[in-house]
Amino acid sequence: MQVGSDILSHGGRQLVITHDSTATATPMTFSLFLPPQAERGAVPLVTYLSGLTCTHANVTDKGEYRRSCAELGLAFLAPDTSPRGEGVADAEGWDIGLGAGFYIDATEMPWSANYRMWSYVTDELPALVAAEFPALDMGAQAITGHSMGGHGALTVALRHPGRFRSVSAFAPIVAPSQVPWGEKAFSHYLGADRDAWRAHDAVALIEGGARVPALKVDVGGADPFLERELRPELLEAACHNAGQRLELAVRPGYDHSYHFVSTFMADHLAWHAERLR
Amino acid sequence: MQVGSDILSHGGRQLVITHDSTATATPMTFSLFLPPQAERGAVPLVTYLSGLTCTHANVTDKGEYRRSCAELGLAFLAPDTSPRGEGVADAEGWDIGLGAGFYIDATEMPWSANYRMWSYVTDELPALVAAEFPALDMGAQAITGHSMGGHGALTVALRHPGRFRSVSAFAPIVAPSQVPWGEKAFSHYLGADRDAWRAHDAVALIEGGARVPALKVDVGGADPFLERELRPELLEAACHNAGQRLELAVRPGYDHSYHFVSTFMADHLAWHAERLR
Repeated sequence: MQVGSDILSHGGRQLVITHDSTATATPMTFSLFLPPQAERGAVPLVTYLSGLTCTHANVTDKGEYRRSCAELGLAFLAPDTSPRGEGVADAEGWDIGLGAGFYIDATEMPWSANYRMWSYVTDELPALVAAEFPALDMGAQAITGHSMGGHGALTVALRHPGRFRSVSAFAPIVAPSQVPWGEKAFSHYLGADRDAWRAHDAVALIEGGARVPALKVDVGGADPFLERELRPELLEAACHNAGQRLELAVRPGYDHSYHFVSTFMADHLAWHAERLR
Repeated sequence: MQVGSDILSHGGRQLVITHDSTATATPMTFSLFLPPQAERGAVPLVTYLSGLTCTHANVTDKGEYRRSCAELGLAFLAPDTSPRGEGVADAEGWDIGLGAGFYIDATEMPWSANYRMWSYVTDELPALVAAEFPALDMGAQAITGHSMGGHGALTVALRHPGRFRSVSAFAPIVAPSQVPWGEKAFSHYLGADRDAWRAHDAVALIEGGARVPALKVDVGGADPFLERELRPELLEAACHNAGQRLELAVRPGYDHSYHFVSTFMADHLAWHAERLR
């Protein structure tokens, strides 16, 4: 584990760390904010999964989470969105390959060699930070994410009952099996068998009986991807039919950018903090 | 005036605008945040001058000012730090040339052709935004800045008595005539006559009788430039001798980065807002 930076920020420590990942067989970089409360005792952990084209750096620079995390005593973990580096498969377009790992373990060649972000974010990374940062209370976790990372947060939480007390998402892809981004990525990474896709589709998981204890989703009303890629109405219907409580808000005028994420970040973190206490 | 982007953020509008500058004879790009209160009436304006190597984008992405500005009803204006583009003089090193305009009107060739940031930030830009955005209350202005931009904020305020109700700075260069960054830049831009430098040296201006109504400065205790380039003790001594009230704080452990700026941004904006009411 190589600490690339460790900077005092809002009273806490903003770390950026690179390590050799077993899951992806590449170096991986993530950021971790430790609030000031971590100096004195255990703190809950919020994991944030980023969207297409992003690295750990987008939310670390533009997410505006540190002030709230410092006030609320939350640690904030932000992994990369795909493996990177020499020899890692890539393709034309920003919706597949580098920056577009979709939080799955690819089964198809050439992706299966490195695109194992599911194993990375569900197993390897939490085990690493738990071992290296004893101040993290791994019994008090929440998860959130943006766009493709909202998809990641929802599916990771739905498939790990008991691990997360709350899950939220900013403009998530809720039904990748039914939208162009997801259909393209899953075809390449998981192959043509659509049954295999259901394990990575939040709407399908809820239809199949998976539940989370608390679920909050915000989408921007002026998000250009709303109708074609995000389709929050599919999540709303699935939750309604399943009796899964969902706090869904459409925020008029907001787009898909970090201006939207940062505007509602404080709300989401306060909501998680209530459930993590 | 070309509006590059106009995005809803924290309830207000984050604009990025490019225009042809008469002062610099180049296109110039700036960002302007209009808080939600600007929809209903006049709002005070805080101008933020950035540091070496920066454009408008650094503080716009990483300054974390929008939440506070939206709460307090402040507009926030962030110009670039130098002219840019084809034919604009540059030199080796990041402490002179592009990104290093030092908020002066250069008198020496080749810099004098475009490096006229003093005229740009004191005359042209305020006139432009006042004309284009009637919601800005130009009678209620404050100014702040970071590093080289802290130098800019101090000197602009000291030489425009009555224009700014308050001036603050994050890790400012307070005495450019006495430190390597300033000596290098002023030699190139203003020539060898050190008397001409005094008009752009906050400590010299205070020694010469200039005053501001309210002055607040924060510096990071772990700032690597503290002892050699920033030298806040020189400002402290000049203010003490001159009877200029100064609220100076050294923040233990903070560096020179936007982690420092963003941590104390909310404090500075609240302090300005009190004086702008």
